[in-house]
Amino acid sequence: MQYQHNFNPTISDEEIFEKILDEKEIIGYYNLPQQDTDEYKEFAKNVHQTNIVVIGIGGSTLGTYAIYKYLKHSKQLDKKLHFLETTDPIDIQSKLENINLNDTLFIVISKSGTTVETISIFKYIHSLVKINKDNCVVVTEDDSKLRTYADINGMRSFDIPKNVGGRFSVFSAVGLLPLAIVGLNIDDILKGAKFVHDSFFEKKSFYNRLINKARFLVEYKNSFNVNVVFSYSSRLEGFNKWYIQLWGESLGKVDINSARQGLTPIGIIGPIDQHSFLQLIMEGKRDKTITVIKVKNFYNHLKIPDVTLEGLENLDYLNGLEFSELINKQADATIEAVNNLNDIPCDVITIDGMCESAIAALMYEYELLTSLCAKFMYINAYDQPGVESGKIILKEKLMQKGNS
Amino acid sequence: MQYQHNFNPTISDEEIFEKILDEKEIIGYYNLPQQDTDEYKEFAKNVHQTNIVVIGIGGSTLGTYAIYKYLKHSKQLDKKLHFLETTDPIDIQSKLENINLNDTLFIVISKSGTTVETISIFKYIHSLVKINKDNCVVVTEDDSKLRTYADINGMRSFDIPKNVGGRFSVFSAVGLLPLAIVGLNIDDILKGAKFVHDSFFEKKSFYNRLINKARFLVEYKNSFNVNVVFSYSSRLEGFNKWYIQLWGESLGKVDINSARQGLTPIGIIGPIDQHSFLQLIMEGKRDKTITVIKVKNFYNHLKIPDVTLEGLENLDYLNGLEFSELINKQADATIEAVNNLNDIPCDVITIDGMCESAIAALMYEYELLTSLCAKFMYINAYDQPGVESGKIILKEKLMQKGNS
Repeated sequence: MQYQHNFNPTISDEEIFEKILDEKEIIGYYNLPQQDTDEYKEFAKNVHQTNIVVIGIGGSTLGTYAIYKYLKHSKQLDKKLHFLETTDPIDIQSKLENINLNDTLFIVISKSGTTVETISIFKYIHSLVKINKDNCVVVTEDDSKLRTYADINGMRSFDIPKNVGGRFSVFSAVGLLPLAIVGLNIDDILKGAKFVHDSFFEKKSFYNRLINKARFLVEYKNSFNVNVVFSYSSRLEGFNKWYIQLWGESLGKVDINSARQGLTPIGIIGPIDQHSFLQLIMEGKRDKTITVIKVKNFYNHLKIPDVTLEGLENLDYLNGLEFSELINKQADATIEAVNNLNDIPCDVITIDGMCESAIAALMYEYELLTSLCAKFMYINAYDQPGVESGKIILKEKLMQKGNS
Repeated sequence: MQYQHNFNPTISDEEIFEKILDEKEIIGYYNLPQQDTDEYKEFAKNVHQTNIVVIGIGGSTLGTYAIYKYLKHSKQLDKKLHFLETTDPIDIQSKLENINLNDTLFIVISKSGTTVETISIFKYIHSLVKINKDNCVVVTEDDSKLRTYADINGMRSFDIPKNVGGRFSVFSAVGLLPLAIVGLNIDDILKGAKFVHDSFFEKKSFYNRLINKARFLVEYKNSFNVNVVFSYSSRLEGFNKWYIQLWGESLGKVDINSARQGLTPIGIIGPIDQHSFLQLIMEGKRDKTITVIKVKNFYNHLKIPDVTLEGLENLDYLNGLEFSELINKQADATIEAVNNLNDIPCDVITIDGMCESAIAALMYEYELLTSLCAKFMYINAYDQPGVESGKIILKEKLMQKGNS
């Protein structure tokens, strides 16, 4: 009988680590923190446009958006980053309304080079403004059709390495190019990722932390099939979306025994979702693990003033409190309430401050965690065969229309 | 032995309907579509400010945001609606940066009247601008402390009926007041809700459709514990968030046998999440039901132009296509791909157009569906006892700080 456990409880930390080391020879994202960033910085220096519009979808935008959303209000940026990613006509139109297209650099990002949404929007842009090598660059694989288009038109193109998958590509040109252009420090981004890389591969703190967490999540995946990331800052909304793609697409797979696997990612925001999802966590079925993400330092001293509202005097205990302290105490209260129940697995990640390295470290940590879970589950984290059938059906539908 | 089934397969449609009819005598939201709207319209007529800032969280904002987000780009609105709902200091600050506070009406919404987030932000606003009866109204229960505050200051207040819970309150003053003020047609909103109300309670099409769907979801809740709403329009992003609260807080409960219940809501957006969550649906564990929501008519003719990009000629089949047609074909392709698998429960809701009645009908449909699921599960849909412990812990933490 041909059968391998889809989780082998006797597999040692060392064996899993060896498998990751082997994979590191083949899968490109692991080594992105060691990259030379000169070509991005050099290009960024010469961009004169104020608006940077990324045309892309999924792995081509989510990671960049996560970092930009986290930092944009804490840094003095003189350029604005926009994302065109969906075929919803009202969305496209309303986003473009507020952008001066004559003062815009377009960055077209598609790993395959033929993503339907991306090329559709890019074509539409051609009807609004003259596109040429001065206002457009592409980021794609070096032999894609989008690359051919760029070469024919003398446009600059940046490579996505073949062995770096879309959802693992934030530390490649996909993320670094637009983020460098808007004025973020991409060396600090890589420094944050490299810190986690080194800690894990040199078997320091992240080694135990990540292997233990992945082992737990996979060992108990049939009890806890839902993994909730509860981020206590609205700045992490983009991170949550990126996490959902990373986790869902990487771990929703058929394993070596043809058994369906999958851990379901949910991303929520505190304290907003204390008023939405928390009730389900507290009293609902015990099918969820919780990871609370806290921001240690908001570098912001916005404060509840010493104001008494007549009738509402019993809320005067809030007076004088900084909002950053309030939101962190709200996170602590949630953690304590969950832990008091004793039957919901809950861990806490605290990131330090509104800086490039903090958010990058968090993202690299999640990439490693995803790879580890996939290894424990005997699945391939890096493909997405399940979405192909829908693409084929769509193409058939559109081709039929062309013939009718 | 004291035990009632938490799902009784022999319960008839008629018995469930009778239970809902009994509940309709007590629970207020059912009858909101029959309401007189004159007081909201009268007030709205006299608002001269351009910016309307709602201060509230959870049920006090999510429904209003859902309707506003759905319609704001399709209607000519001369006022802008903003939401202050979180204690994240960077979020508060960045939102306020772009609003002229001297041309702003503040609507403070809290059912209990003492919501920590809402009062904290309201206090902060007091340090920025003089608050008085000309630039501030409250929406709360008629005997709350926030109501006392309003009365003392001669401020207009609107009631939230005691028997209307926060997450079921969108068709009360909570939603209707701000939406009337920004210029949406609130009679059309209620018309949409009433259409579904009448169809259900007169045992027309929604009667079978909703009872059958609720019965299925509850009967198979142990197989399919996750319910994914896959909305094919970015305009439905607010609806998704509202659905998550409605579903999560109403159905995540302990039942009459002290058994933990709960159906986990997930809201995703097409086609964006085809590049994120779809892989998990297609190849992951069979623990999810899918409801695809399509918009039949975007009333928008944005088109992919007849442009050939050299190198990308093989995508010319997209030329001439309207984006609204493309996004709906993408939805159809996803539905077909899911249905081809034959083992994922999938239904489709098509809403007709970018108008008030369409989004309101969808929301009232989901409120009824939620009530029906709760009835089948023998739980109370209208309380949220699980979030109280966190609130108590928070207050203790903040009080300690005051003493230290």
